[in-house]
Amino acid sequence: MKIIKTGGVTTPVGFKAGGINCGIKSNGKSDLAIIYSEVPGATALLTTTNQVKAAPILWCKEVIVNPYKQAVVVNSGNANACTGEPGTAAVKLTADKMGEALGLQSADVLVASTGVIGVALPVEKILAGIDALVPKLGNTLENGELAAKAILTTDTVMKTIAVEVDIQGKPVKIGGMAKGSGMIHPNMATMLSFVTTDVNIEPALLQKLLKETAVDTYNMISVDGDTSTNDMVTVISNGMAGNSKLEENTPDYEIFKEAFVYVHKTLAKKIIRDGEGATKFVEVEVFGTKTKDDARAMAKSVITSNLVKTALFGEDANWGRVLCALGYSGVAFDPLKVSLVFSSQAGMITLLSDGVPIAFDEDEAKKVLSEKEINISVELNEGDEKAVAWGCDLSYEYVKINGDYRS
Amino acid sequence: MKIIKTGGVTTPVGFKAGGINCGIKSNGKSDLAIIYSEVPGATALLTTTNQVKAAPILWCKEVIVNPYKQAVVVNSGNANACTGEPGTAAVKLTADKMGEALGLQSADVLVASTGVIGVALPVEKILAGIDALVPKLGNTLENGELAAKAILTTDTVMKTIAVEVDIQGKPVKIGGMAKGSGMIHPNMATMLSFVTTDVNIEPALLQKLLKETAVDTYNMISVDGDTSTNDMVTVISNGMAGNSKLEENTPDYEIFKEAFVYVHKTLAKKIIRDGEGATKFVEVEVFGTKTKDDARAMAKSVITSNLVKTALFGEDANWGRVLCALGYSGVAFDPLKVSLVFSSQAGMITLLSDGVPIAFDEDEAKKVLSEKEINISVELNEGDEKAVAWGCDLSYEYVKINGDYRS
Repeated sequence: MKIIKTGGVTTPVGFKAGGINCGIKSNGKSDLAIIYSEVPGATALLTTTNQVKAAPILWCKEVIVNPYKQAVVVNSGNANACTGEPGTAAVKLTADKMGEALGLQSADVLVASTGVIGVALPVEKILAGIDALVPKLGNTLENGELAAKAILTTDTVMKTIAVEVDIQGKPVKIGGMAKGSGMIHPNMATMLSFVTTDVNIEPALLQKLLKETAVDTYNMISVDGDTSTNDMVTVISNGMAGNSKLEENTPDYEIFKEAFVYVHKTLAKKIIRDGEGATKFVEVEVFGTKTKDDARAMAKSVITSNLVKTALFGEDANWGRVLCALGYSGVAFDPLKVSLVFSSQAGMITLLSDGVPIAFDEDEAKKVLSEKEINISVELNEGDEKAVAWGCDLSYEYVKINGDYRS
Repeated sequence: MKIIKTGGVTTPVGFKAGGINCGIKSNGKSDLAIIYSEVPGATALLTTTNQVKAAPILWCKEVIVNPYKQAVVVNSGNANACTGEPGTAAVKLTADKMGEALGLQSADVLVASTGVIGVALPVEKILAGIDALVPKLGNTLENGELAAKAILTTDTVMKTIAVEVDIQGKPVKIGGMAKGSGMIHPNMATMLSFVTTDVNIEPALLQKLLKETAVDTYNMISVDGDTSTNDMVTVISNGMAGNSKLEENTPDYEIFKEAFVYVHKTLAKKIIRDGEGATKFVEVEVFGTKTKDDARAMAKSVITSNLVKTALFGEDANWGRVLCALGYSGVAFDPLKVSLVFSSQAGMITLLSDGVPIAFDEDEAKKVLSEKEINISVELNEGDEKAVAWGCDLSYEYVKINGDYRS
């Protein structure tokens, strides 16, 4: 697999994109993005499990019944959630306008929104924006980056990726863009992620692959424990790489899958690195559980614990809070069999070894925890399964951002 | 029911208490408390559901098999959790010393600890402290307050209560003391609560009553979502009021129950009012659900949401986050049937009425949310059940306290 140093949704063959400010964001930052495929693409979709679903989410769930899509339109600055009938109507008008502007059926179009909940969507700005943006769509790197920037809200950086693999002698590319900074606690994922690929694959297999992939990527990140009303991940694969249709359980599929998982995992981690107010990027690895679900529950429990997160912000080697979080994860285990290590580029300290607290040097601990990227590894000694979760610390900045942002 | 303006664990007949500093806390604050009943009392006990249980918790679960206890010893400043064999031995030595000093069996004694996890308990200080404290035990209000202060950690105030009811022409009193400020997310309750009463009741009925009571009191509070390793609530009833043994489903029982629930609910709310860094006391009432469990899950979800908590800190009427928290509570409901109101002493604003967002005056909202005590009421229109949860906001102070406190 080759990682394409700068790439995104326009990297695979046959995809165009773009982004502009259509007037939703009063500060002039871009707020409208489009991704377009020259031909219809087999499409996979995952959406939030929150009972309260934004109007665009409901639209996507409806139209994905026919799993071939050709365009996505995304606005930021307004989630179009809890906006009643007008919100629903706005989505339809948006899809209709996209169809008209691009020569598609409305149902060929996915719609997404992100931003403040409960404020009416200024749809007339979106409609005018679509008319202005469509002629500007292009397949360059820059076009892709304009789209990637237009979907951001409290994010401080755009999150893009592109990779290439060789399948049957043909280059197959996967590109992606994502957003998400606060209100991050995937189930499926509190964020928006759009992935394009030119691979040739059946939609059912693509959906299966996406669903599996989300479990250990987007579903294993947390910034603050809140699962949003607007979560969405979608993958459009337009087949323009020209490979023979991928079949499960073949070497070609495995090659694609490895790259696919890498793309989603990287986007998920990029979201965490940009977590609201985050000063630390934290990876929690749980080993030695009876089942994978056990490991996931435990890793998520640690990464979500406010007390662990504040300790990490304070660079305090407070392993008791980690153990406490493991203890209320819902998984049965014997505390006397647990080993626990904190590590970073600066070194490693063992806090617990088979249930026994190990005396450690506070200065060494401080050195390890002063790094931006921290790893917490836990061995339960109950079985052979493992899981990884990613998160960040809880800082004053998080409180400041969220005490002040109507979102 | 009469609320006794200043009272606590020594208010009921036949109870003594006291508190001193035995040297665990280096700042000289008191850290050792004892409650003693002149005669053995029917005892009820609830302990943490965290898989990781402190050594004293394990002791209590063992000895409660015989549900009559006569004393409790509590130390603060050290949780005696994750302390291995030495920690277990320390509990036994403590109970033995209490037995020796008070003329009891070791198994007549409950032991509790609260404070930092993973640090060896300096048991010799506790043993010496017991010898020093026992002669000082008394049944005055002051003795009770000394005990109430000795169990505190990051709390800024002691939490006590006492009430009196009339049963069969006899006064029956219930008194209590509790602690808990951070690491609060009951399941059963992340805190210590000790309640004394002179009522005459069978232990089995008392346990049943305590278990029921905890569900809508301690289990409905949250400061930060972390359930600790040391949670415990215990009630000792020594029968010295002289009433005929309480029988379920009788008017006398109902009179006692009402007072009992009031005591625990008040202690639970006092814990929240003193939540680490809290500037707001928040009550979330959920009405109109199909089941009580639904209502509880939804109320807890809202009170625990970091995004709701930070919005309240910022005095921002961000109802979208409340709806979002309801949406990921796990309970199915129709967002289009929801009504939502924020209120306080300063007034009331309606945010949603039967699913429709209601335009509100931002100044009015600011006025309502500037108060210290906020009520969020949600009507689901799905049934007739309801529940209430209490919590607090998430502030810079919380981050500061927990970024700096090894606990």
